[in-house]
Amino acid sequence: MAFSERVARLKSSLIREILAAAQRPEVMSFAGGLPAEAMLPKVEWADMPVSMGQYGMSEGEPALREALAAEARALGVPCEASQVLVVSGSQQTLDLAAKLYIDQGTEILLEAPTYLAALQIFQLFGADCLSVPLEADGPDLVELRARLEQHRPAFIYLIPTFQNPSAVRYSEAKRDGVAALLDEFGVTLIEDEPYRELTFDGASATPIVSRLQRASWIYTGTVSKTLLPGLRVGYLIASPDLFPHLLRLKQSADLHTNRVGQWQALQWIGTERLRDHLSELRDFYRGRRDGFQAALHRHFSELADWELPQGGLFFWLTLKQPLDTRTLLKAALANDVAFMPGEPFFPDPDRNLGHLRLNFSHIDPARLDEGLKRLAAVVREGQARQAA
Amino acid sequence: MAFSERVARLKSSLIREILAAAQRPEVMSFAGGLPAEAMLPKVEWADMPVSMGQYGMSEGEPALREALAAEARALGVPCEASQVLVVSGSQQTLDLAAKLYIDQGTEILLEAPTYLAALQIFQLFGADCLSVPLEADGPDLVELRARLEQHRPAFIYLIPTFQNPSAVRYSEAKRDGVAALLDEFGVTLIEDEPYRELTFDGASATPIVSRLQRASWIYTGTVSKTLLPGLRVGYLIASPDLFPHLLRLKQSADLHTNRVGQWQALQWIGTERLRDHLSELRDFYRGRRDGFQAALHRHFSELADWELPQGGLFFWLTLKQPLDTRTLLKAALANDVAFMPGEPFFPDPDRNLGHLRLNFSHIDPARLDEGLKRLAAVVREGQARQAA
Repeated sequence: MAFSERVARLKSSLIREILAAAQRPEVMSFAGGLPAEAMLPKVEWADMPVSMGQYGMSEGEPALREALAAEARALGVPCEASQVLVVSGSQQTLDLAAKLYIDQGTEILLEAPTYLAALQIFQLFGADCLSVPLEADGPDLVELRARLEQHRPAFIYLIPTFQNPSAVRYSEAKRDGVAALLDEFGVTLIEDEPYRELTFDGASATPIVSRLQRASWIYTGTVSKTLLPGLRVGYLIASPDLFPHLLRLKQSADLHTNRVGQWQALQWIGTERLRDHLSELRDFYRGRRDGFQAALHRHFSELADWELPQGGLFFWLTLKQPLDTRTLLKAALANDVAFMPGEPFFPDPDRNLGHLRLNFSHIDPARLDEGLKRLAAVVREGQARQAA
Repeated sequence: MAFSERVARLKSSLIREILAAAQRPEVMSFAGGLPAEAMLPKVEWADMPVSMGQYGMSEGEPALREALAAEARALGVPCEASQVLVVSGSQQTLDLAAKLYIDQGTEILLEAPTYLAALQIFQLFGADCLSVPLEADGPDLVELRARLEQHRPAFIYLIPTFQNPSAVRYSEAKRDGVAALLDEFGVTLIEDEPYRELTFDGASATPIVSRLQRASWIYTGTVSKTLLPGLRVGYLIASPDLFPHLLRLKQSADLHTNRVGQWQALQWIGTERLRDHLSELRDFYRGRRDGFQAALHRHFSELADWELPQGGLFFWLTLKQPLDTRTLLKAALANDVAFMPGEPFFPDPDRNLGHLRLNFSHIDPARLDEGLKRLAAVVREGQARQAA
């Protein structure tokens, strides 16, 4: 059986196994990144024209592209609708970017930690993944400069606002600093912003692409975290030099994004109704975060350190006494608790032991305390086993 | 600007330009492959559960996978629901297959002519495209054996039922012959069946994958030609050795196919309502085909040869006096007529001059005669210019 070389790089199914195990109703899961079921808005379809059933344009629905460009301009991103490509969820942006840039051995630059599925698809295409350490307010700029001086990465991939997994939001100074370095070295920025709207303090965080003077860029977002993930509607906005290539790669990937989802997204984007929904969503998730923080203090204050997330869906724990958290999974699942080990979020997992990513949005609050209590016990047992 | 090597292989946008030009309302277009607008069924959404808005499984909706497996078994394809992967239109199957098999220089085997977008994506990934000539009843089996004796292609890609562009339907004997050769040489079959249900004579055409004894296979279909292309819901069914890889590649491409489209497809597949709709669709397209055939006789009988298509959406014309039909495009569009030149459907276009693909499903019958008359005049002028 002769598969492509890339198939040998398809990652083991650890994550799939965790998420599959977490489906069992008795499992208290902190593993996924699912929006809360109760907060999925009720949507109407009765007014959708029959023509949405026909083939559409690879670029996406013209009215939706206009609406997305207007929203991006309001954030400070200088763009026209002609730079907007509707994609089948922002995961597809990563696939298109990988195709645009990555040959076997191509160097790219990532934050450490970074979004697991991005790491996986970049590695699938054969990228050599360099990384920059993430601090509480964004990447270490000294290290970033050093990487850029020593390497010519094809692009840098960043999630500056409520990063998955670390929940870090870059400061204004770090945003400016990153933009200046990318302009200086002429390195393309891929800025991934799924969590921007899920902010609990409303503080400003203008996109980095809006601060660039020279470097090429791709900005990507989605309606999955604000409206309905099941629609699979995301978008990218690209500098004009990149757009035509991305469009042709999109066409060859799946012709175009489903039009029913695009039509539904258009009913919401830029409307008062969406602003109201987002406001409810933030209140709801802020409440869940606060409950989670209290329970964490009860069960993990001796075991781990963490920052209070100001947005997004995750707590990122750093164990005071590090161990490979992947070794805790089996015991956790045996106790009907699921979590996401931190190691796979790093390009070099074995040198980054001792983090846990815990989702706070999806767990039933009635089971939260019991879940964290059991997880803390699993961690303690693991540490005792390691010390023995 | 350092893009991947594959970007240099992104094809020129000839086809995009044709289709864009064909959008002008005054253009009589035979270029696309669009279902007739009038035949898009009215669909209902009122009963869709809110949960369809949540993230779903990469495999697809369980009930839809069951329904698709049952349909495939009824066609003779031996499979379980566990072998069914719901994809974002069957175009995505080609993307996943390319990722699974193709490194730069990997040999693959295609019919000549073959589906243009398949050729493009396989070449994008760097495939070396070998081809087998297509006869009126399927591929030349002597040539197929010769290719298999001289090469070790990673797979063969075939569209055995109402092929795009040639409208060829393989005979039973050719289907058996192809299956026997693939088993003998152990070559994987990718069988693409978008047009199977659009049959005008109802003759049998059991899938080739159902005749295989040993070879691995991927069978792919879509609801785009039977229900609504705008849903972007297709599927693949794979032999168990291939399925886990395809699933992981699907997950990295776009997590999962949109669930609203999947839910809608499930409301139709296997129902009396879909059978009634397909029956109407066949009658409608058969009528359009007959009208097209009559108009072709009026305007093209001295210029070209063709077979009457027994299904699908296209007539495939072979000019009696060959010329590069790409050179006719400009004049055709200047006369407000669009068509698809045949050359790009071949891996070696310059050695396969003189075919035209004409779509008969989408043109307004009131403009058909005028359109073909103008197109015939463009061909005559081109031939006169060439002779001069």
